[in-house]
Amino acid sequence: MNPLAIPEIVIRRLPLYLRTLNVLANKGQEVTSSQELGSWLGISSTQIRKDLSYFGEFGKQGTGYDIHYLRDQLRKILQVDRHWSVVLIGAGDLGRAVLRYGGFEEGGFSIVAVLDKDASKIARRIGELQVQDVASVPDVVKTQGIQIAIIAVPTDEAQAVANALVRAGIKAILTYAPITLNLPPEVRVEYMDPVVGLQSMAYYLSPGHM
Amino acid sequence: MNPLAIPEIVIRRLPLYLRTLNVLANKGQEVTSSQELGSWLGISSTQIRKDLSYFGEFGKQGTGYDIHYLRDQLRKILQVDRHWSVVLIGAGDLGRAVLRYGGFEEGGFSIVAVLDKDASKIARRIGELQVQDVASVPDVVKTQGIQIAIIAVPTDEAQAVANALVRAGIKAILTYAPITLNLPPEVRVEYMDPVVGLQSMAYYLSPGHM
Repeated sequence: MNPLAIPEIVIRRLPLYLRTLNVLANKGQEVTSSQELGSWLGISSTQIRKDLSYFGEFGKQGTGYDIHYLRDQLRKILQVDRHWSVVLIGAGDLGRAVLRYGGFEEGGFSIVAVLDKDASKIARRIGELQVQDVASVPDVVKTQGIQIAIIAVPTDEAQAVANALVRAGIKAILTYAPITLNLPPEVRVEYMDPVVGLQSMAYYLSPGHM
Repeated sequence: MNPLAIPEIVIRRLPLYLRTLNVLANKGQEVTSSQELGSWLGISSTQIRKDLSYFGEFGKQGTGYDIHYLRDQLRKILQVDRHWSVVLIGAGDLGRAVLRYGGFEEGGFSIVAVLDKDASKIARRIGELQVQDVASVPDVVKTQGIQIAIIAVPTDEAQAVANALVRAGIKAILTYAPITLNLPPEVRVEYMDPVVGLQSMAYYLSPGHM
């Protein structure tokens, strides 16, 4: 099936299903239902069944989903049944925090290079990586066949960094900077925006306590 | 209308609409359409019109949406037409990066306190805030009437911090730790999980280049 034939909003929900399946599997559970997944995620069971039906039959009526099987299938669909190399731009507070984030490997990603423009950071080691000069973006991306980048630089540098990444051949960018990047349509971008999460929750708060 | 009568998945999309309206407004645009919003977000125009119809009539057939009006209405619906006080736990690399994030005020939030358990960090200033002892959580939350917290502590401390926040009366938690928190059902939680964003994009990448 043409991957573009599936609505993007469906694709964006699959990682949430996968995340929830991981939680359930880690608790030792073996079977789940669209109702249970839905109650974890605030999504209706009908929506979940409809989303999954784009990709085939994953459960039997009345017996639910085998968690390990569904997890393997979602990993294949999302192409994270392998490890993607990722380049991180920015070795400041945020970049270091990203490097310490513990979930990349299980999710299908490996940060293989970290680059910064600050001479005082270049050549320093962070964990197993040595910070390289941001000028090496084209070399690093090409040599290591990298398609994915994470931007963790100050806001006023984010667009220039994104431009350099795109010129080097990067196809997908996850950015922490609170600005909307201007990118060619074929480059995908995801925003790590804490305000979106906070606003979703503010809706439910009691306005009497501010 | 009872706020709980609206599907949570609809509420979770409203901040994305608001974010896109801000982008368009900052470009000087005054009118938009469900088609345009949809193309920015990868959501169908039908879905957007259906989501907005829960809250009333915001556009006229054929003339689209007035960006400033729709933005004001979404802010009211989400209760972010005011400023919510937020407490931040964790003054390490990640906490400092969160404090430097530039989008909170425009989004309706003010980080009014930062707490840490590390004696070497307590009493230090970060921007306009002085780091307080995490033992002061109950005091800070109660005195300042805070309902929202951001957790930016190491993974193995996140659950204990969340417990303390809930005991102090916090109703909504945004967490950066890559674990699923065990919380009472009445407490809302949002996960800042870079893996979810990366996985959404991996689906579209060419598997030939790894």
